[in-house]
Amino acid sequence: MTTSTTVAAYAAPTAKAPLERTTIERRAVGEHDVLIDIKFAGICHSDIHQARNGWGEGIFPMVPGHEIAGVVTEVGPGVTKFKVGDRVGVGCMVDSCRECASCKAGFEQHCERGNVPTYNGIGRDGEPTYGGYSQQVVVDEAFTVRIPDGLSLDVAAPLLCAGITTYSPLKQWGAAPGKKVAVVGLGGLGHMAVKIAHALGAEVTVLSQSLRKKDDGLKLGADHYYATSDEKTFQELAGTFDLILSTVSAPLDFGAYLSLLKTGGALVNVGAPEEPIALNLFSLIGGNKTLAGSMIGGIAETQEMLDFCAEHNLGAEIELIEAAEVNEAYERVLNSDVRYRFVIDAATI
Amino acid sequence: MTTSTTVAAYAAPTAKAPLERTTIERRAVGEHDVLIDIKFAGICHSDIHQARNGWGEGIFPMVPGHEIAGVVTEVGPGVTKFKVGDRVGVGCMVDSCRECASCKAGFEQHCERGNVPTYNGIGRDGEPTYGGYSQQVVVDEAFTVRIPDGLSLDVAAPLLCAGITTYSPLKQWGAAPGKKVAVVGLGGLGHMAVKIAHALGAEVTVLSQSLRKKDDGLKLGADHYYATSDEKTFQELAGTFDLILSTVSAPLDFGAYLSLLKTGGALVNVGAPEEPIALNLFSLIGGNKTLAGSMIGGIAETQEMLDFCAEHNLGAEIELIEAAEVNEAYERVLNSDVRYRFVIDAATI
Repeated sequence: MTTSTTVAAYAAPTAKAPLERTTIERRAVGEHDVLIDIKFAGICHSDIHQARNGWGEGIFPMVPGHEIAGVVTEVGPGVTKFKVGDRVGVGCMVDSCRECASCKAGFEQHCERGNVPTYNGIGRDGEPTYGGYSQQVVVDEAFTVRIPDGLSLDVAAPLLCAGITTYSPLKQWGAAPGKKVAVVGLGGLGHMAVKIAHALGAEVTVLSQSLRKKDDGLKLGADHYYATSDEKTFQELAGTFDLILSTVSAPLDFGAYLSLLKTGGALVNVGAPEEPIALNLFSLIGGNKTLAGSMIGGIAETQEMLDFCAEHNLGAEIELIEAAEVNEAYERVLNSDVRYRFVIDAATI
Repeated sequence: MTTSTTVAAYAAPTAKAPLERTTIERRAVGEHDVLIDIKFAGICHSDIHQARNGWGEGIFPMVPGHEIAGVVTEVGPGVTKFKVGDRVGVGCMVDSCRECASCKAGFEQHCERGNVPTYNGIGRDGEPTYGGYSQQVVVDEAFTVRIPDGLSLDVAAPLLCAGITTYSPLKQWGAAPGKKVAVVGLGGLGHMAVKIAHALGAEVTVLSQSLRKKDDGLKLGADHYYATSDEKTFQELAGTFDLILSTVSAPLDFGAYLSLLKTGGALVNVGAPEEPIALNLFSLIGGNKTLAGSMIGGIAETQEMLDFCAEHNLGAEIELIEAAEVNEAYERVLNSDVRYRFVIDAATI
C-alpha cells in the first residue's frame, strides 16, 4: 500500500445518525507502519457514546472501534516487530508523543500532549483517525500488539479495551492469591475483570444490582455473587475487600462501597458517572483507604495482558454479529442486553 | 502505684467551658503498665475540637492531650520493654483489641473493635480515659513508645500525633529522593510534613494560602513555596507532583489539586472538611490518580517515626506554655497564630 487505499467501513455520518456502510481512506504504509487486515472489532460502550456525540466535539463521519484484532498483510521498511501474517491487535490509541514523562514511563494513554485515539481523533499527520469497524487499518508498529497463538482473534478483540482496562488496575492494586477482590458490575468490563482477577489468584466477588447474572458470574470465575440492591449485602460484606474495581458509570454510594474495604483497601474506578460524586473524606481517612482511577493501560502493559490472557486461556465472552447489525447491537448494549461483548465479523463489512 | 492515684490535670468540665485545673484518678499500675511522669504535652487542633464537643458525644470532664512525652517512674511486673527512667511517649491511643486483622497488621488505629483513644474514650476496663494535660498517666507498655536520647522531650511531644500523622502517609506513598512532594498547609501537621519529607529526600513544595510563612517554610526544609490564592500557581504547577499531602480541613477544590499530580500520583488527606466534597471521578481516571486518606499510624510505625526523627534531628517547632495559658493557646490555634505547636510544660500543671 504505497499510496492511500479506499476501504469499506461502517460510520456514523453525523452525530446521532445510525451507522451505515461507507468508504474511508487509509494512509499509505509508512516506514514504521503495519497494514492490518481487520478480522474482528469489538463494540465498546464508549463507541456508542462517541458515535452519538455524548462527549461533544465528535469528528464526523466517525468510524468507531478500538478493539481490533487482525492479521498483518504489509509492513513498512522500518518495521522490526512484525511480519506479514502476524496476528495483531490495536486498542484505544494509535500514537502518542513518545517523549513526555508519561510516555517514557509506559503510560502512553496519559501522554502529556494527548494520545491519538484510534478513532475520533486527529493523528500526528493532521488527519482524522478511523477505527476498527472497517476492513483494514494502518498503524504504527509501536502501537500494535501481538495476539498470541493461543487466543482466537474473535475473543481476543475485546481484550484490547475491556481486557487492558481491567487488567491494569487489578495488577497495579495487587489482585493476587490471598486477596479478596470485588468487581462492581458484570458487563463488558466486569466480566473480563472477573476472569482476570480469578486468573491472578484472587478470591473474587461480583457486586451487581441483581442476581440476574449470578450463574454466569460464577462460571466466569467469581467465588461469590451479591446483589447491591439488597441492603444486607453492605452489612454482611463490611470490611471484606482488599480491592474493589468499579466498572460501572452509575453514581454509586461511594461511602457505602468504601465501607466494604479492609483497612488499607482501595476502590478503583474504571467507570465513572459524568457528574461529580459527593464524598466524605473521613470515609478514606478512617481505614487508610484509597479511591483511585485507572484508564486503559500502556502499550507494554497491553502486550503483557494479552500474553497473560493467552497463558490462562482468557478470551471475552462474545456475541458475533454481522456489520449490518451494528445499530441493533448498539441498542442492545444500551439495554444491557449482551453477554458480554458484541464483536463485528469484519468479513461482513 | 499499687492503688489508683490522684493527679492534677487540666480539664474541660463541660462542653465548651474553658479548661481549668482539677484532679483525676490514674489507675493502679497493672501487670503490663508503665507509670509515666508527664513532662510535656502538645496541643493538637483536635484537642480543641473535642474539648468543645465539635464531634458530639464528648465525655466530660475531658482532659485532652495525645502528644505526651515523659519519663517512666514505675513499671508493672510483666513489663519488658521499659524500665524506670526511660524516656517515653504516648500518642493518640492507649489500647486496642490486638486480635483483629487491622491490629495484627500494625494498624491499631483502625482496630475493628475501635481503638481506645488516649482521652475522650472508654478503656477496656470501662473507665474513661484522660489525656496528657496532666502530671502522670498509666499506659500499657504495648502502647508506649521510646523517645530516643537525641530528641528533647519538649520538641518530641508533638511528634506523637503531628509527626506520625505525616510520617505514615509520606512513607507509604513513597516520599523519597527523586520524588516531588507538596504539602498543603503549613500548620502543626504541615510543618512536620515538610521536615519529614525533606529528611526522606524528596523535593518539597509548600502550598499555602498565602506567602506569609514562606521564610519559615524554606527554613523548615521546603524547596519551593507557592500561594494557592494565586491562580497562576495551579497553571504553573500542573502535573508536577508525585505526592500531595493535604493537612488542612478547608474544603479544597480537589479537582484543581489533583491536576497538580503527575500521572500515577496520589493526593493523600490527613485533614479533611466535615462536609462531603464534590469530586469528578474523571479527575482520577485521567492520569491514573489516587485520592487517599491516612489516620495517624500504628504503634510500630510510631516508634519507627521517632527513631527516624531522632536520626535526622527532627523535632517540632514549638512554643512552650504554662498550663494556665491553655485556653488562650486554644484561641490562638483557632486563629492559626502559632508557629507551629503549643506544648504545655507539665511541671506547671
